[in-house]
Amino acid sequence: MSADEHDRLVALYGPLTDDMRELIEAALRTEAEPDAIATARTAIQAATEALRSREREDSQVVRYSFNGRPLVWNNAVIGLRNAIAPPLTIHQGDDGISCWSEFTMNAAYEGPPGLVHGGVCALVLDHVLGEAASEGLTKPLFTGTITIRYVRGTPLGRLRAEAAVERTERFKSFVSGHLSDAEGITAEAEGIFIKPAWAREAE
Amino acid sequence: MSADEHDRLVALYGPLTDDMRELIEAALRTEAEPDAIATARTAIQAATEALRSREREDSQVVRYSFNGRPLVWNNAVIGLRNAIAPPLTIHQGDDGISCWSEFTMNAAYEGPPGLVHGGVCALVLDHVLGEAASEGLTKPLFTGTITIRYVRGTPLGRLRAEAAVERTERFKSFVSGHLSDAEGITAEAEGIFIKPAWAREAE
Repeated sequence: MSADEHDRLVALYGPLTDDMRELIEAALRTEAEPDAIATARTAIQAATEALRSREREDSQVVRYSFNGRPLVWNNAVIGLRNAIAPPLTIHQGDDGISCWSEFTMNAAYEGPPGLVHGGVCALVLDHVLGEAASEGLTKPLFTGTITIRYVRGTPLGRLRAEAAVERTERFKSFVSGHLSDAEGITAEAEGIFIKPAWAREAE
Repeated sequence: MSADEHDRLVALYGPLTDDMRELIEAALRTEAEPDAIATARTAIQAATEALRSREREDSQVVRYSFNGRPLVWNNAVIGLRNAIAPPLTIHQGDDGISCWSEFTMNAAYEGPPGLVHGGVCALVLDHVLGEAASEGLTKPLFTGTITIRYVRGTPLGRLRAEAAVERTERFKSFVSGHLSDAEGITAEAEGIFIKPAWAREAE
């Protein structure tokens, strides 16, 4: 994909997804009258219909790459076009084995009152460890096992996640990372990422 | 909350959230013209404004209970009012130590092409193991550690998750579970759930 086309699509889809994220949060907080909720539903259905005026088929999910990295715009954690993604923007370390992200979790990611759902912490950590293992998704590596240790509750709000490859043994990469708020680490993770057989055979 | 009020709110908010889930999926698939996307954005913003005509404040998140269980409608996995939740409906076993859920994961939960994001598998397993540990969220228990072992890729579509308490030692519950599709298990999980100090002191 050319830089111009990339910029055009980012400008087209990014604000649409951001609008949906605002909608999701408004729906969590609303105490509007039934009439207002009916109005919202009609508007949402109209938006869905407009988007469906032309759509890809299930079997035709197009994937692009840009600057040597896949553009996974539908990804559940980093997807520019996926309203359930917070989204995380991943920064790769210059060393090729680490990465980090700073991001905000709003009420949509809540589990216990005021805290990020423990499973959402696991979702973020799995993704960030996977990014470190795969050098920004440029290598085919899948999670083999991951262990999350919860140090304390992770508050909603501004958070940071980081991960780095500790060592690599043949087809396995051992990766560790953590999630933190301004006060320090809230959850730690260790994962083993595995290169699938088809990728080993291709080497 | 009375049964009537519960039913009224389920009928009010459930379809609104379902409409948003359809919108999220339509946005992932759309190849609509920029004009149609602009139309969709305007409609989404109108819906958000309608919902914001009256809303709770951040500090006033109201939690209800019904039939002795908390109604966590904002929860990121099971929330009736949270469009990022698939949502899972959790069925408690009669034994008080197990639970299961059958649910569908659409393109919004994708990681690798056609597969559920590994972190989303972890999200679901953390939640289901936590439900088993806490007897349907009626006991205060937090995840201490959880380990996920990925057996193979989990395809998008119809899935099942289940979990059961293996044993309990003082403040710790040892829980295991798995995620499966029609062909069998795709990911296994083991977790240790811990009763917090304030809950121990209250006993």
